[in-house]
Amino acid sequence: MQKLGSYLAGAWSQGAGARMALVNPATEEPLADVASGGHDLAAAFAHARETGARELGARTFAERAALLSALAKAIHGAREELLALAVANGGNTRGDAKFDIDGGALTLGHYAELGEKLGAAPLLPDGDAIQVGRTARMGGQHVWARRRGVAVHINAFNFPGWGLCEKLAPALLAGMPVIAKPATATALVAHRLVELFAPLLPPGALQLLVGPAGDLLDHVRTGDVVAFTGGSATARSLRVHPAIADHAVRLNVEADSLNAAVLGPDVELTSETGALFLADVVRDMTQKTGQKCTAIRRVLVPAAREAEVCDALRERLGAIVVGDPAQDNVRMGPVATAQQLRDVREGIARLAAATDSVFGGTGETAHAKGYFVGPVVRSTKTPMTCAPLHAHEIFGPVVTVGIYDGDAGEAAAFVAKGEGCLVSSAYSDERDWVARFVGGAGAWAGRLYLGSSKMAAQSPGPGTALPSLLHGGPGRAGGGEELGGIRGLHGYMQRVALEGDASVLKSLLG
Amino acid sequence: MQKLGSYLAGAWSQGAGARMALVNPATEEPLADVASGGHDLAAAFAHARETGARELGARTFAERAALLSALAKAIHGAREELLALAVANGGNTRGDAKFDIDGGALTLGHYAELGEKLGAAPLLPDGDAIQVGRTARMGGQHVWARRRGVAVHINAFNFPGWGLCEKLAPALLAGMPVIAKPATATALVAHRLVELFAPLLPPGALQLLVGPAGDLLDHVRTGDVVAFTGGSATARSLRVHPAIADHAVRLNVEADSLNAAVLGPDVELTSETGALFLADVVRDMTQKTGQKCTAIRRVLVPAAREAEVCDALRERLGAIVVGDPAQDNVRMGPVATAQQLRDVREGIARLAAATDSVFGGTGETAHAKGYFVGPVVRSTKTPMTCAPLHAHEIFGPVVTVGIYDGDAGEAAAFVAKGEGCLVSSAYSDERDWVARFVGGAGAWAGRLYLGSSKMAAQSPGPGTALPSLLHGGPGRAGGGEELGGIRGLHGYMQRVALEGDASVLKSLLG
Repeated sequence: MQKLGSYLAGAWSQGAGARMALVNPATEEPLADVASGGHDLAAAFAHARETGARELGARTFAERAALLSALAKAIHGAREELLALAVANGGNTRGDAKFDIDGGALTLGHYAELGEKLGAAPLLPDGDAIQVGRTARMGGQHVWARRRGVAVHINAFNFPGWGLCEKLAPALLAGMPVIAKPATATALVAHRLVELFAPLLPPGALQLLVGPAGDLLDHVRTGDVVAFTGGSATARSLRVHPAIADHAVRLNVEADSLNAAVLGPDVELTSETGALFLADVVRDMTQKTGQKCTAIRRVLVPAAREAEVCDALRERLGAIVVGDPAQDNVRMGPVATAQQLRDVREGIARLAAATDSVFGGTGETAHAKGYFVGPVVRSTKTPMTCAPLHAHEIFGPVVTVGIYDGDAGEAAAFVAKGEGCLVSSAYSDERDWVARFVGGAGAWAGRLYLGSSKMAAQSPGPGTALPSLLHGGPGRAGGGEELGGIRGLHGYMQRVALEGDASVLKSLLG
Repeated sequence: MQKLGSYLAGAWSQGAGARMALVNPATEEPLADVASGGHDLAAAFAHARETGARELGARTFAERAALLSALAKAIHGAREELLALAVANGGNTRGDAKFDIDGGALTLGHYAELGEKLGAAPLLPDGDAIQVGRTARMGGQHVWARRRGVAVHINAFNFPGWGLCEKLAPALLAGMPVIAKPATATALVAHRLVELFAPLLPPGALQLLVGPAGDLLDHVRTGDVVAFTGGSATARSLRVHPAIADHAVRLNVEADSLNAAVLGPDVELTSETGALFLADVVRDMTQKTGQKCTAIRRVLVPAAREAEVCDALRERLGAIVVGDPAQDNVRMGPVATAQQLRDVREGIARLAAATDSVFGGTGETAHAKGYFVGPVVRSTKTPMTCAPLHAHEIFGPVVTVGIYDGDAGEAAAFVAKGEGCLVSSAYSDERDWVARFVGGAGAWAGRLYLGSSKMAAQSPGPGTALPSLLHGGPGRAGGGEELGGIRGLHGYMQRVALEGDASVLKSLLG
């Protein structure tokens, strides 16, 4: 059995102590194991701070962009192997695996392209030069400067490929060395990626810790950035972590999210917009077995459309074959771990106590082995007061359909009940309705996806986080921001107001 | 004696329990008192969330800007009264008081002007529209949307006027209701300002809590913003506060800052640039008795200039009359409180153990009453390893002069030793030297002030936080950002990626 090592201070090394197994969640067969600790993380941080920061700092944006291009190429070159690892270790269908692996390469490519345009700029301008004195001679110019410090990336189990790349790309391009810690249970993909990436990067630029985090965060200091994707309980513990609180370490959190999808009152289910809505709900339920932080969890439809929507969901979900994703006919695999299965079942039970069954009961399946749960649709006539619907993210193939009177303000209030989400979506071809919805829901989401007939044919759906658009959200979603093109770099840079002779400021921008 | 009330839930009310005195720090004479608690803060938050948010949300940017204009006018109308309060309660000279009061009006005016330009925009664009699908039809547009929630402003004792206004202006313009809590010891100015402001604002838009914070922060929820200016120990306790950590409340901190000023190797002290450097150091030591978060604390000069710099400082500081600022000849008043005096004296003692005296010994003065400390200049031959110099902010009229070899990289490393500051400054007319300094120091400051001969005649100095330039800094300085023109609004808004039909996105920008 493969023994996964960590890549720290320039070398691969095995941890010490008790070993944890990584399994195939469809068969429960062990695939690899990893030891629980014993690494010299102080040496890893020193390697990043000294060697990694110096090496990256000596390169221009364009040179760092070339590194990202090489990483994207490495993924393309090992694509089949990576897809197979994702299927085996992640419970992914081949489609799910492509979403993760190709998404990672796409994100690296996006930042490579962006970095090439930045060229050899010593500083990135933030807005225009301004006058701050009596005359134009005394000026101000905001810029983004390279930070000195280490980026610590704590990734979630659901996207071991994309998650690694989407945090790595902006950090490296900004010039910050990275220590990445993937979730242990699905670490095979991330481990293989770092095996591919490490020889292509300068020393110290990328390190990998596989297994429990241990005292990783005790080493963070002023200037470092910690970016975390995962559950809200861990997010809370990071916020109050002594090293983070003591040193005002920048913490970027992406946590739970009760993403909503609202059907506008103008939309016939048979229209292009209606079809887009249905396709998006079904995709988000079944893709990655609902284990996407961006997946639709709460659905709101006009009361008059409820029966039609539920019938359509029953029909489509009835055709989904759940099973071992290594088999060709399977459309949805298991959830990733035994613990996830327990959590999802608990969540369904909580929800079932307050809602009615539309499809799939409580998700029981007939599999003797593996972490399977079937697609589940619940419904409620009182969505605004259905507490379990708005209080717990069920990280699996589960949605609840609620009804409303079609008012855009009520739709926005429904979104708000989730107390902050990564994305919510509305499907309507009435611009006034959409504008009212955005006006109300904008405070509660990091992204609003506006489905309409005009874009239905080329929409990636709300569940796809694109490198060019922000990924993150307020409140329950953690309050963080990632990606969004150049915005993603800013999380790894320091914004500085330069003040002085206007011609000096101009020359500093190079 | 005046009994200071709080303005909560639409009414002025006295607190209950033991009373705390506000005194004149030059004479120790009591001026007013305030009770320590007993307010219904849940009702205050409800008033802000319901009435305040609705009232502000019903107004456009331009209409909210008009409110800020009215507040600025109210300051102008009561200017003499406010200056007198600042002199009596703050230990301010008349010049210090103007810096605080006029600075507040200036900041309100800046945001009034900015808001007028924003007009009736429903959303503020963040960057340009982008293509996210195969064709230009499928687009993305980042925007800033109005947040729903309350802005809690916890202000520092040193700028009761400016501090209130610089946080209030962007929050109100962004449409967020404010609950302001000034530091108790110097609250007379803030209290009077809210007496002036409240009748000019819609109900719920501004509330004031005078006295200890009590359970103020227990009431914050998702969507709220807490902005704090003060010491790093309190900042740390805010970061780990349960309500803030539980609800991912946005926390903006401005804390300690060991601001540095570096004299470039090219600068003769008799040049315009040299004169600017000396004037800035002396101003920052004595203005507000050194109680500015932006004041120069650490000075670095080429070894060859040390004697000349120290002689010039001795001469100028020797002419500063320290005393009751109500007297016309006095150039520097006391520090604001007995506790501040104790803290400053402790800080000087720590510093004195590791440095040599240049001027003022340890700051002892002959005053029988009042919280007086004289200007103190210390020096060190080993500035890079002088631990107390880089570890403790002494919030009073104290600087330490260190020497270096003139290298820009070493100057930047000296700035970095402070582990994050609000502002640092460099004085040089050599562009290459300045570029190297900025490249190294940019990671460690929120603002870099670049003194040169070309701007000397119209420079406000590094110690002045302008509304058009960011105020905040990484690490020890808290990691927050305020002001910076439109950037100041963003701290009170939610950034959202809108995704959909490009023509719909365009229409949403109004």
